[in-house]
Amino acid sequence: MSLTRVQQISISLDGFATGDGQSRDAPFGHAGERLHEWMFATRWWHEREGEPGGTGGIDDTFLRQFATGIGAELMGAGKFGPPGWHEDPDWKGWWGANPPFHTPVFILTHHRRPPIEMDGGTTFHFIDAPPAKALEAAREAAGGQDVRIGGGPTIIREFLAARLIDHMHIAVVPILLGRGVSIWQGLEGLENDYDIEATSSPSGVTHITFTRAGL
Amino acid sequence: MSLTRVQQISISLDGFATGDGQSRDAPFGHAGERLHEWMFATRWWHEREGEPGGTGGIDDTFLRQFATGIGAELMGAGKFGPPGWHEDPDWKGWWGANPPFHTPVFILTHHRRPPIEMDGGTTFHFIDAPPAKALEAAREAAGGQDVRIGGGPTIIREFLAARLIDHMHIAVVPILLGRGVSIWQGLEGLENDYDIEATSSPSGVTHITFTRAGL
Repeated sequence: MSLTRVQQISISLDGFATGDGQSRDAPFGHAGERLHEWMFATRWWHEREGEPGGTGGIDDTFLRQFATGIGAELMGAGKFGPPGWHEDPDWKGWWGANPPFHTPVFILTHHRRPPIEMDGGTTFHFIDAPPAKALEAAREAAGGQDVRIGGGPTIIREFLAARLIDHMHIAVVPILLGRGVSIWQGLEGLENDYDIEATSSPSGVTHITFTRAGL
Repeated sequence: MSLTRVQQISISLDGFATGDGQSRDAPFGHAGERLHEWMFATRWWHEREGEPGGTGGIDDTFLRQFATGIGAELMGAGKFGPPGWHEDPDWKGWWGANPPFHTPVFILTHHRRPPIEMDGGTTFHFIDAPPAKALEAAREAAGGQDVRIGGGPTIIREFLAARLIDHMHIAVVPILLGRGVSIWQGLEGLENDYDIEATSSPSGVTHITFTRAGL
């Protein structure tokens, strides 16, 4: 069975997955990298950067689910680039020549362009479709494996509201951003459809998992 | 040293400490008692109700700090009664003849009335003063012990914004209320003044403590 999953979306205590004022120089706006410092400390991150060391506990364990069993990613236009990226014909995402996806990646955007093949197995596809339809395309490309909904918060909220997510991992970071894009807005009663577990880490982060009830 | 503390304020994942539509029949609005069910399961709560049984783990341990070392409580008008309580001369709070405070309790309100002495050591005082001034009055009544800021969320936010809180215990309950009164609004950067720890419980609740840095 091919699931639809969200992995390692980091949010502040007040629920913001990205800050205010996103730009090419500040992909997460005024949040900077503060939502992701817990990741940089792990072995998983160090390996990805080709460096030794890093922590091997709860944080690392959750991060290792990022690629496991994933056959495709579906992301929102706001994750692929800063506001206005579609006006730059050379924009190929934030991640350099070898993006960390290594699967087909579908970008939901009104600004379609031909697919871009990157190093390491990542191909960017640009589609203009409603959530359920886009998910079908990603599912087909995933070849029986799971589809990761990669964010940002707006697309995750849309997929949650449409009850299209089977499993979600959120990392709550103990900071208060005060402003930005909320992951929770408009999702009253979401707990009725999911089994929710919380696991706090010595790093200060709390991992929250949502598993669709009865799955 | 007499500290200013917040104990066991329960909030939803999306940060609401009380729901929408508070009334005499629904003190927490559409949230009902869903924010407090974790408390009802503990030994601490059972003892308070004169019943045997209850859990004795992390949740219970945090709850036992409620009265420990507290000499007075300061609460907002919205905690003392439903909207319009000041128009009822017989209103003496939600808690019956023997309220669970057992200390002087200061109610911040524009509608002053004479003190009300209740059973069990609780006396309600009604004061109309800015936060720091009200805190002075409660501190004096606390006789060297700590002052608890009892809520609701609006007064806690005010005291946090004024950096008047030394220690705070928040319990995050895994539900999404969607609407209500937020505990976090307008507190960007609060983490700079506090050491923050998170401890998840088997009940699903995550306890978050804020301790003023350097305390």
